[in-house]
Amino acid sequence: MNETIEHLLNHRSIRKFKPHQLDQETVETLVRSAQSASTSSYQQAYAIIGVEDEALKRQLVDVASGQSYVAENSYFFVFCIDYHKHILAAKIASGSVDRTVETTEALIVGAVDAGLAAQNLVIAAESLGYGTVYIGSLRNDAAKVSELLGLPDHVVPLFGVAVGIPDQQPGKKPRLPMDAVFHRNTYTNDDTMRELLSQYEEETSTYYGERTDGRRTEGWVYQMAASMREPKRTYMHDFLQEKHLARD
Amino acid sequence: MNETIEHLLNHRSIRKFKPHQLDQETVETLVRSAQSASTSSYQQAYAIIGVEDEALKRQLVDVASGQSYVAENSYFFVFCIDYHKHILAAKIASGSVDRTVETTEALIVGAVDAGLAAQNLVIAAESLGYGTVYIGSLRNDAAKVSELLGLPDHVVPLFGVAVGIPDQQPGKKPRLPMDAVFHRNTYTNDDTMRELLSQYEEETSTYYGERTDGRRTEGWVYQMAASMREPKRTYMHDFLQEKHLARD
Repeated sequence: MNETIEHLLNHRSIRKFKPHQLDQETVETLVRSAQSASTSSYQQAYAIIGVEDEALKRQLVDVASGQSYVAENSYFFVFCIDYHKHILAAKIASGSVDRTVETTEALIVGAVDAGLAAQNLVIAAESLGYGTVYIGSLRNDAAKVSELLGLPDHVVPLFGVAVGIPDQQPGKKPRLPMDAVFHRNTYTNDDTMRELLSQYEEETSTYYGERTDGRRTEGWVYQMAASMREPKRTYMHDFLQEKHLARD
Repeated sequence: MNETIEHLLNHRSIRKFKPHQLDQETVETLVRSAQSASTSSYQQAYAIIGVEDEALKRQLVDVASGQSYVAENSYFFVFCIDYHKHILAAKIASGSVDRTVETTEALIVGAVDAGLAAQNLVIAAESLGYGTVYIGSLRNDAAKVSELLGLPDHVVPLFGVAVGIPDQQPGKKPRLPMDAVFHRNTYTNDDTMRELLSQYEEETSTYYGERTDGRRTEGWVYQMAASMREPKRTYMHDFLQEKHLARD
């Protein structure tokens, strides 16, 4: 164990920040940290938009179901899959990479690349004492976000990251039992998985019960069954295709 | 700047490790670090397979175009998108999440969740002095990897992470100029992007030239144009559909 790992293990998302703005040197340190993450085949298939304009931030709050901390923070980053620069690079070299970037494989590469970069940024921010939260709800209307941020074809917004000085100290939500996530050599059998899920249902039910004076008793299992019953953002496939991504 | 950020900025992939095995306590510390990362809507839509069986590791080397460090390391992890546990959870709750997990949105969530978890694991390992490398080439044959690791439907392998004691000290490959990745408020215009790419072409051309005694002079722009000319892993879309993912 060391300080870095202690930080990782103590992570919790922060959804209320004190009034404060990041200075540009810190912004650049965070972006450089993001850029230092591994990237598939050196492609660096992501872009980061730093949203500094207050009006723009407010418009992103609307996309994100009114979550005020999308605007009220020290800085707001939007992470995107980005193959626009590869399209430009190919043109400089009198070539074309259009077929490559429109595959499902390229979608996976871009999403993973963006994830690795974002997590580096989050860890760098937390190591400096800031709190962070990922904002997946920007995908409620990815077309609107693309329009607001002037994203060209081959670029799609994935999620935001808000950074700020914590103004709350939330509890750490229990993660799945290690054995339900970590499998040795082969994926664990269904009987064992069901047992682990029941155990987790109890643990999370107790966790929620204690935090709501018993008003909420559903744990993770029932929560997932409810929250994932109706498919979300079913427009995504068509939207990606319009952006010339994930066509096959 | 602090020690954590210094570590992030000094990251380089390690592809040659000294003979050594991770002890189980360290393996579990790394997995717990991975599990502490943020996860979309509490879904934890990923699985980690710890490959400990030597014969299994050798078979993964074959999938990964013979990269020997897939077997020769202190530990090898495979990160997967995993919605199998949500399918089981829904059944426990007499519900169904089948329609949700087969959307493109769910593919994005799973890929990002796996990326965040993996990067936490990598940073934890590096903070302990280990070297790491991501192995995307497991996707050369995702069906074979799935078979070897006994992955059920709704689970697909994304990439591996090898961890070990570094037996090489590679250079740090220059990243794209910050302004080509980081855009303020709106995506940078094409003229500026072309300038930045030309500048990067020169920088990376010099980098490769110095490391190959002038035998290699192509920089990033020409490298991308060449390596991304032909689409890769075009089977991925069909494979995901067979696994009941990314159907629309």
